[in-house]
Amino acid sequence: MLVECTVTVVVPPPESAAAAGESGRAAQLAAQPTAAVPPSDMMDQLRDMYASGHGTDVTFSVGGELLRAHRIIVAMRSPVFRAELYEEMAESRAHRVEVHGVRPDAFKALLRYIYTDDDTFTTSPAAAAAASGGEDGDGGGEATTTAIQDVLVAVDRYGVERLKLICEHRLREALGVGNVARMLAFAEDHHCAVLREACIRFIATCDRMGDLVATLGDAQLVSTRPLILIEVLEKSHKFRSV
Amino acid sequence: MLVECTVTVVVPPPESAAAAGESGRAAQLAAQPTAAVPPSDMMDQLRDMYASGHGTDVTFSVGGELLRAHRIIVAMRSPVFRAELYEEMAESRAHRVEVHGVRPDAFKALLRYIYTDDDTFTTSPAAAAAASGGEDGDGGGEATTTAIQDVLVAVDRYGVERLKLICEHRLREALGVGNVARMLAFAEDHHCAVLREACIRFIATCDRMGDLVATLGDAQLVSTRPLILIEVLEKSHKFRSV
Repeated sequence: MLVECTVTVVVPPPESAAAAGESGRAAQLAAQPTAAVPPSDMMDQLRDMYASGHGTDVTFSVGGELLRAHRIIVAMRSPVFRAELYEEMAESRAHRVEVHGVRPDAFKALLRYIYTDDDTFTTSPAAAAAASGGEDGDGGGEATTTAIQDVLVAVDRYGVERLKLICEHRLREALGVGNVARMLAFAEDHHCAVLREACIRFIATCDRMGDLVATLGDAQLVSTRPLILIEVLEKSHKFRSV
Repeated sequence: MLVECTVTVVVPPPESAAAAGESGRAAQLAAQPTAAVPPSDMMDQLRDMYASGHGTDVTFSVGGELLRAHRIIVAMRSPVFRAELYEEMAESRAHRVEVHGVRPDAFKALLRYIYTDDDTFTTSPAAAAAASGGEDGDGGGEATTTAIQDVLVAVDRYGVERLKLICEHRLREALGVGNVARMLAFAEDHHCAVLREACIRFIATCDRMGDLVATLGDAQLVSTRPLILIEVLEKSHKFRSV
């Protein structure tokens, strides 16, 4: 049987013709079918784990809703969760955590991002419409803008810095005369440095100052945060002198 | 103060000159500094978690070494770990698991991949040398080839399919007359379909059958797995008739 094998005359398969002049081994390698290695499945597995809820070991109670998660995953992604779940309650290992002041949908969006890097809630059709729509910035995309702000509240609290930057950039795109004052007040309250800078710059360079002034009072910016207006003046002067 | 603000004449900053003809808002947006959102930090955080060992809740005892891990992460990446850590011992929740028949270094490489998708152990300089080196395929890269085989043993046992494919592809690149028989026996033992197919194809199309036959006996392929030779014969015939 083995003898028959040794007398075989090998004719290179057609696809290795180009390599026929090279060594036999190279030709053989070229002739091998390339069953490609699929791309990383890590993110799919994290998504599946989040969707299935398999092995969850902590429950967040948010506005009456119970949301289950894996403490090590949320701790990995947020220094605040890490402190809350491993350091402050290291002994008790509480299985249920009450979350106040965050909307359930915003907390869900935060969890989804934590597991999957999914930030699509910031780029829904409505958000896109708001970004490209009416320049007053308070049109049909207001619901999405509000949703992003809700997430920013949660993200600021739990210190998920990259998602915070993503949200700030989305809100920056949606800035308009109609919402910039409110947005500046929001940025102040929730430590959004990028959004705050964008708002101040927007106001400082605005060519519709008359319309803008009307909204500044609504946002109570003048009465509660007068120092910001000095910054706006400084920026206006800087841009004027460029 | 507010009045001073409204009489400001806005000169567009230089960088928005191109957009000056468009609406004021577009110009303002263009003028805003673009603090880019950094790329995903998920993999860095997984790597840090693995490196720090923070919050680990299971210890694998492998060849006398104790390796700590997070049960949810290894379960997420391997159906076998999932069964072992959540299903079979759901009640006991054993914190220490004995692993037999896997080398510590191979188990470490498996863990590193599980946390980080890191497969660089398969592409070390030695492995590259083996792939491009002497066509007998048993030169200086043998240590790396052996290391990859050790990982394949672990990977086959724990069902980490993508890493299995990566290892099989690396070994396929290192195939030579000197090692193909041993590699085929290994592929049979550890359910490596891609590597097995590559070995059979290599033998079937080999133009150095005399050298090859000498190694077939060493690998005990003929005595222990005679059916493979029939497959090799079939493939030889197929390639000849193309």
